[in-house]
Amino acid sequence: MSNKINKVAITGGTHGNELTGVYLINKYKKNPDLVKRDSFKTLFMHTNVGAMKKCTRYVDKDLNRTFIKKDLVNDALYSYEDVLAKSINLKLGPKGAEKTAVDFIIDLHSTTSDMGLSIVIDNDNRLTWQVAAYLKEMEPDLHIFRWRGDTKEVSFVNSITKDGFAIEVGPIPQGVLRADLFFKTEKLVAHTLDFFEKYNRGDLHKVYETIEIYDHIKLLDFPRDKSGELNATVHPNLQDNGYYKLTKGDPLFITLEGEVINYEEEKDVYALFINEAAYYEKGFAMCLTEKKVIKI
Amino acid sequence: MSNKINKVAITGGTHGNELTGVYLINKYKKNPDLVKRDSFKTLFMHTNVGAMKKCTRYVDKDLNRTFIKKDLVNDALYSYEDVLAKSINLKLGPKGAEKTAVDFIIDLHSTTSDMGLSIVIDNDNRLTWQVAAYLKEMEPDLHIFRWRGDTKEVSFVNSITKDGFAIEVGPIPQGVLRADLFFKTEKLVAHTLDFFEKYNRGDLHKVYETIEIYDHIKLLDFPRDKSGELNATVHPNLQDNGYYKLTKGDPLFITLEGEVINYEEEKDVYALFINEAAYYEKGFAMCLTEKKVIKI
Repeated sequence: MSNKINKVAITGGTHGNELTGVYLINKYKKNPDLVKRDSFKTLFMHTNVGAMKKCTRYVDKDLNRTFIKKDLVNDALYSYEDVLAKSINLKLGPKGAEKTAVDFIIDLHSTTSDMGLSIVIDNDNRLTWQVAAYLKEMEPDLHIFRWRGDTKEVSFVNSITKDGFAIEVGPIPQGVLRADLFFKTEKLVAHTLDFFEKYNRGDLHKVYETIEIYDHIKLLDFPRDKSGELNATVHPNLQDNGYYKLTKGDPLFITLEGEVINYEEEKDVYALFINEAAYYEKGFAMCLTEKKVIKI
Repeated sequence: MSNKINKVAITGGTHGNELTGVYLINKYKKNPDLVKRDSFKTLFMHTNVGAMKKCTRYVDKDLNRTFIKKDLVNDALYSYEDVLAKSINLKLGPKGAEKTAVDFIIDLHSTTSDMGLSIVIDNDNRLTWQVAAYLKEMEPDLHIFRWRGDTKEVSFVNSITKDGFAIEVGPIPQGVLRADLFFKTEKLVAHTLDFFEKYNRGDLHKVYETIEIYDHIKLLDFPRDKSGELNATVHPNLQDNGYYKLTKGDPLFITLEGEVINYEEEKDVYALFINEAAYYEKGFAMCLTEKKVIKI
């Protein structure tokens, strides 16, 4: 963690219907000074313009599950997002290289679930976690979710570089720009850039030792019928509740007929990403996590 | 208003990403007795299966703006929704006929804006308004919005028949099934069917004389740049507020740079359909309405 940060990328529109990131990049294009710092370069870009134009999550497949090392060099893959991923990988990576074109990626997202202001981290690298701890100090309402994935290899945009994370804010419907969470996201990006500026200048007089996180246990699907249609949706107790504590016997789902299905496991968990629209097709209704303090 | 009701249609999935209607029709398919009444027949159907499968509002164009009389008999129109509209029109209509195949259409919708439990009425026919007044008595929280359209001729699915309306519930993100509003929608449909049962049997011992409505004044767009991108979004005061009273000087929009744009007209109005995702491409941020009591 001793190398200087030379270049940071802010990416938005990875999912074309998540407008917070789309419009924040628009704002930076009009006002590049907002993300300018003296000691490093900041690059900002829309990652999936094709999906943005259609206001859909993706054109052919989820770009944020497409950064798999062997796929990025596989000429046989030619879908819109496969081609896009290769191009982004060349610009920001390449993934797995000792030295990548940028040192840190901040990828901007929103969710229909009540995630408030969150960051999603999928690596164990010291720099990333020091940034996370700094952000938590700056914005005490920030939640930190350690993601353990729905793909074998982490395949997010921000996995191109060793260090980085996704910002997730919600609840925001797809295709909607919400003022409050737009400005919160902007502030969190600014804090992140400020961290790098202090880091490069040696002005960080503190090393963070621990951090409170929500640690991925597993993904939980909706009850479905044979054809894959939902038989139930999340119980009203969980709807609109981010980071909801579930104890054995708590209502979890409610069927279309009104029957309540309870959480029946012994272990207390925290549910998050509850009722995220984009996860219906992926096959999960929420993520179950453990709240803990980890050493970093 | 003296003729017996013979057949009622409940339509869902007109917008393929509005899951309340999609799943309510699924429920009726499994439990047809729920919508069975003795004195008339109830038909229920998914209207836009193509859009449902893609979980998008539409395939080629908005089905709920496609029921224009001359278009329904124009062989030159061949987009997915044009073809679909012709087929639905033959099944439920035809629109404009003295005697249509069904007497009343209840079309199920949801919105990303905070519309609570609402019905949208686009006709001046006595039966429709008697039903509305009955529903308002059964569900006092119900809001009634008289729509004056964004097309010259009313072109909603429920305009196929002389009488009918759309149920609008929200806030619900596109592609999400919310339990609370699902059950509220179901209850409102049941009340509507109960009305027809009482009506046919002569058990309605009351004629409603007046009703409180929100009456369409105009549609208001977001501030945009030359390329059509938003320069601003709705001010946080309005976000999450359905049927919001606007008085001269009240904050209305906030630009991406944080500048507040106020409502500057003299007339007090009520804003609704605030920040509905599907209306970004139609060019409106909200509908302005007048709250009034009308004779029916």
